[in-house]
This record gives sequence, structure tokens and C-alpha cells, in this order.
Amino acid sequence: MAELSDRSGVAAPTIRYYIREGLVPAGEATARNQAVYDEGHVGALRLARALVELGGLSIVQARTVIDHLAAPDADRVTGLGKVQYALTPSPGTAPEAARERVGELLARLGWQVRPDNPAATSLAQAIGDLGEIGVVVDDELLEAYAAAARTAAEADVARLAGREAGSAAVSVVALDVLGDRAISALRRLAQEDRLTHASDD
Amino acid sequence: MAELSDRSGVAAPTIRYYIREGLVPAGEATARNQAVYDEGHVGALRLARALVELGGLSIVQARTVIDHLAAPDADRVTGLGKVQYALTPSPGTAPEAARERVGELLARLGWQVRPDNPAATSLAQAIGDLGEIGVVVDDELLEAYAAAARTAAEADVARLAGREAGSAAVSVVALDVLGDRAISALRRLAQEDRLTHASDD
Repeated sequence: MAELSDRSGVAAPTIRYYIREGLVPAGEATARNQAVYDEGHVGALRLARALVELGGLSIVQARTVIDHLAAPDADRVTGLGKVQYALTPSPGTAPEAARERVGELLARLGWQVRPDNPAATSLAQAIGDLGEIGVVVDDELLEAYAAAARTAAEADVARLAGREAGSAAVSVVALDVLGDRAISALRRLAQEDRLTHASDD
Repeated sequence: MAELSDRSGVAAPTIRYYIREGLVPAGEATARNQAVYDEGHVGALRLARALVELGGLSIVQARTVIDHLAAPDADRVTGLGKVQYALTPSPGTAPEAARERVGELLARLGWQVRPDNPAATSLAQAIGDLGEIGVVVDDELLEAYAAAARTAAEADVARLAGREAGSAAVSVVALDVLGDRAISALRRLAQEDRLTHASDD
């Protein structure tokens, strides 16, 4: 247990909690206070920690994702989709007009996404909120954002190729959560650069 | 006051609070319980609400931004920069190695940003956190994110051209906060589309 804690960087009480909650399999008991853990445990711990600490998922949500990834007939895309859907904040409902615009945009872009992808509602909600504050979201702005998002997503997906499901799932959490922060920061830096140039003209 | 509340969509007690805190100028008193408000008040209210409710700024932070925008010698780029800096979460410190990578990236991109732009620290922190979870942020990923961010920022800045400072500041808040949500949602949609295609190959 001490070695597993060292190897994974997760404190022993947290490891015991994850095992008790079924997020990580128990070690093979070899003596009264001894158990053997292997690479599979280290990987399972990394995934549990990524989902709970970085992704902010509840224990129940994390278990659902982990069980799905471990299912013998698991389809890789569906499994990673479940990770991603669990990470996407569900903003409730969005105005009908905004939802229609999202549907039209996706059709125009030719993107294949499932109708229950929560990101579609999240996008419609952002468009609705912008409209409420008096900022008109024209198609040109939406398409620029979509082009930006696609550039980032291609780089993301290239980093998942050839990885086994658990390790790919850790990357999905890390890239989605921290990638959002990185892209947000880079957009603000690019805005300052662009504003500076605009005032030079 | 009732009319101002109707026009701006801000409740009367909130308007009185903003006036008391110096975020919005008081109306010109015409009788004991009457005051005249004009378009300037409607604009000031929109700005105060965008900063406080949407941007999540404290009253003191909002007042600093508003005072700066209203200063007679205010430089437009500096003013909008102050709005943006106030909206950027300050994540404290970032690992030295990650900060160096951000500096090198900005130099390679040729972006003109001030050394105190908090987004640079925010980016370094995200890179550091990714490394801690075992995801290597290679230059190719960073450059893809930067290209994505620049595409979005160009569309953002085009929407500020020719607007007066207060109205441009409302747009900066709206585009930064809600634009982050929109781009995050679009990236997840694009990831699903790209993953689906990758599994078709």
C-alpha cells in the first residue's frame, strides 16, 4: 500500500476510499496486513483520481464511467464519449431559438454528433445568454469559434490514438478540463495581441 | 427609476445598490422622489451588470474597471485590457519550467503581450497541471491550441471595432466568459465527430 501510494502519488487513505467505493480493484491479499498491487492498480488509481479530483465527478458518476470502460464488449468511442459527457456541465434547458441555431450549425459543418451530446445544450445556453446581454452571436462568430474548436479537437484526438481505454480516458479528462483552461488563456493573450495591432493601424 | 429598471432589465434595488457603490451615476433629481435618467445610465447599468453578474467581479474590482474606462485620458486598449485582466482567474504561481515554455511559445508566435498579463500565468499553470497528471504537453499540441485561440480572438476583436469604450467593455466580458463556454462546448462536439471518424478509418 505504501509503495502503491508512492508510485501513484495518491495518499493511502484516498486509495482505501477508492477501493471501498469500487473505483479501484482491491489488491490480492498475501498476509493479514499485506496485499499485492500491480500496474493495473496504478492505472486504475490514475483514472479514478483524474475523474474525481480533476474532472470533479461524483463517486457514483466516476464508477459508472469506470464500469463502462471495463465492460468486455465496450466500444472505445462510446466509452470515451461517456467520459466526456460526464465532464460536460449540464446547463438545464436552452431557449428553443438557440437550440435550433446549434442544430443548423452542426448540419452546416457536417459534424457527426449524437443528439444527446450535452455539449450541444451547453452551446445553445451560451448563445442564449449572450443574446440576453445584448450581444448578437452572428453566424460568422459561431463559425470562427467552430473552426477554432475543430483545430484543437484534431490535436486532442491525435493524442488518444493507440492508447488503451483507461489511459485514453485519463487523457480525455486532462485534455478537456486543462485544455479548456489553456485555450481560454491563449485566447486572452491573442486578444491582447490583436487589439494592440488593431490600434496600430 | 421604474422606467430605468424596465429599460435595463435590472431590478430597482440592484440599481440603487450600484448607484450607492459608485458603479452607476445617480440620476438628476427633479422632485423629492423623482430623478431623470438617460441613455448613459442604461449603458452604465449594462456595464455594471456584465462585470458583476456575468464576469463575477467584486464591487471594488468593477469600480476600478469602470473608473479606468471613464478617465478622460483613458487609452482604449489599456482599458479593455484592464477588463480582461480582471476577468482572468489568477492561479497564483506556476512552475518555472512551465512559465519558460509559455515565454518561448509567445516569442515563437510573435504575440505582443504585456509581461503582467495574468493569462500567461494561467496558461503556465494548466501546462504544469497536465504534466503532473502525466500528460506531456508537446509543442505541437500547444501550437494547435494557440492557432485555435487566435482564430477565435480575431473574430472577437473584429466585434469591438468602432464601439465606444463602455459598450466594447460589455462585449469583452460577454465574449470572454460566454465565448469560453461556447468554444469548450464546440471542442467537445468536434472531438466526438473526430473520434467517430478516427474509428471509421
